[in-house]
Amino acid sequence: MSAKKGDLISYRPDIKLLDATIRDGGLVNDFYFSDEFIKELYQTNIKTGIEYMEFGYKASKKLFDVNKFGKWKFCDEESIREIVGENNTDLKIAVMADVGRCDYKEDIIPSNESVIDTIRIATYTHQMPAALEMIEHCHNLGYETTVNIMAISASREEDVDKALEMVCESPVDVIYLVDSYGSLYPEQVRELAAKYCKAAEAAGKKVGVHMHNNQQLAFANTIEGISHGASFCDATMSGMGRGAGNCFMEQMLSFLRNPNYQLSPALEFIQKYIAEEKAKGSVWGYDLPYMMTGALNRHPRAAIAFIKEGKTDYNGLYQDLLYEIS
Amino acid sequence: MSAKKGDLISYRPDIKLLDATIRDGGLVNDFYFSDEFIKELYQTNIKTGIEYMEFGYKASKKLFDVNKFGKWKFCDEESIREIVGENNTDLKIAVMADVGRCDYKEDIIPSNESVIDTIRIATYTHQMPAALEMIEHCHNLGYETTVNIMAISASREEDVDKALEMVCESPVDVIYLVDSYGSLYPEQVRELAAKYCKAAEAAGKKVGVHMHNNQQLAFANTIEGISHGASFCDATMSGMGRGAGNCFMEQMLSFLRNPNYQLSPALEFIQKYIAEEKAKGSVWGYDLPYMMTGALNRHPRAAIAFIKEGKTDYNGLYQDLLYEIS
Repeated sequence: MSAKKGDLISYRPDIKLLDATIRDGGLVNDFYFSDEFIKELYQTNIKTGIEYMEFGYKASKKLFDVNKFGKWKFCDEESIREIVGENNTDLKIAVMADVGRCDYKEDIIPSNESVIDTIRIATYTHQMPAALEMIEHCHNLGYETTVNIMAISASREEDVDKALEMVCESPVDVIYLVDSYGSLYPEQVRELAAKYCKAAEAAGKKVGVHMHNNQQLAFANTIEGISHGASFCDATMSGMGRGAGNCFMEQMLSFLRNPNYQLSPALEFIQKYIAEEKAKGSVWGYDLPYMMTGALNRHPRAAIAFIKEGKTDYNGLYQDLLYEIS
Repeated sequence: MSAKKGDLISYRPDIKLLDATIRDGGLVNDFYFSDEFIKELYQTNIKTGIEYMEFGYKASKKLFDVNKFGKWKFCDEESIREIVGENNTDLKIAVMADVGRCDYKEDIIPSNESVIDTIRIATYTHQMPAALEMIEHCHNLGYETTVNIMAISASREEDVDKALEMVCESPVDVIYLVDSYGSLYPEQVRELAAKYCKAAEAAGKKVGVHMHNNQQLAFANTIEGISHGASFCDATMSGMGRGAGNCFMEQMLSFLRNPNYQLSPALEFIQKYIAEEKAKGSVWGYDLPYMMTGALNRHPRAAIAFIKEGKTDYNGLYQDLLYEIS
């Protein structure tokens, strides 16, 4: 494993924070945020000193009905510009595009015509050739690119190694270590971060971490990941995100020592807008069913359904989950 | 730092779980649990295979009014016997005694007349001579003893080192690494666990970990602590405990591979009894104010008061906390 990077007093200028509240949080409310929420989040992110703000997905309008989701599932150029204008700020704007769920050849315009800075390409290991085409395409359009290789805890180690090798040969800028199921333990994150960083550094790329909170480990895994070489961290306001949610941005702003970061604007945003989002009925965060799917290294869909239906027969769910993997 | 102990597939028979639900959870409801709650928790702990159950405090009836607290703040011998009879089970029974807040010479009877197995002595570094007298006294009465050195994150390192040296020369059986303020990060826990273990092993003693969840790190810090040599772990059902609460017992039962442990009885207990406790109005668990006191290495009392008063001016609290430490 690589040597520990950084300490608890100084700061590493290579560390960047990415606010994924709209994108991962949009999975909770089908991307129906008020414009005020998005505008205030944008202003808040500028004030906090966060480096990146992810606006949502570039999802295919052929595959998804625009009447069934809020506009941040599609992130039209005009939608973003309504919030940010020309974005004459230091905050970079990112969107996510899922392999197989976007029409990137039509929907992603050249970077010099767009207010978007960064395209984040989300892929499973079985989609790597398609992911590489997307990376190449977006890179040639002039974008910074990241690749988020998902669900690695449920992939064969040799497949992850091969995927890593492939993206290291691509023009991608940042390779993300993603714990889709919230099932990794800190000791695994340290080993994976060291592996990703070793490969990425040799190829002149950076490594990011995107952690879920199914086992209340999102913050721990994020800070362990950066202590072992990762430099891009995804987080969301109060952890808003699908199921158990994500690493909390306010914890990252509190933990990191970069003097550019300000916690107070995030606290004020949370007090008003996260409270309103919860009052609207959006539900996310650690809960016992997520602990089970996380610990069993399973997609959280059974836990999400269980909670949505208001069930509390935890042992029944646990027995069902055990039965399915046996 | 000592080498990592254990892995994610096998199990270490030296690891013991202690259920601190009544003792730490009692700080939430002034120890007013129903007898049914306690009886069911006892039966549940037997079924799960947990090794220790802490019943509460042996608090001084001269210092604390018995009419203002439930009986588990005092843990009379008869109160425990009403629940466990002669306790002809493998589950060991523990109580905690705070240095300076108990009348141990009168209230702790010889071990062979008591159903209690283990006395846990909680102390601050500035009380060490009194703690050593209590350890000696309880040891001579025939009890297994542990010492919980509290608030070490706010103590001088040389004081912690000296306290460690002193307890290593005492007859105490287990030395606890305690994160009273929930302010330690995993990298600090690893270093402290290694330090405690080095000292304890040389003296033929064991090390335990007792973590709080102010920064959502109680589970992470507990498993990092045991991976780096600790073997006694405190946890509570659904993390019930003062303020942000504790490490969740259900997570420990899920994480550890000891075939004696059963998760299902804990899930059934939580479904009924933890839900009832919450319905009664008991409040605990991670919340933004606790993140602030944890990150600032402060006692959580300001956060507890803020939440109790229903306040949400998070930035106001944060500025107050910053002002107090400046």
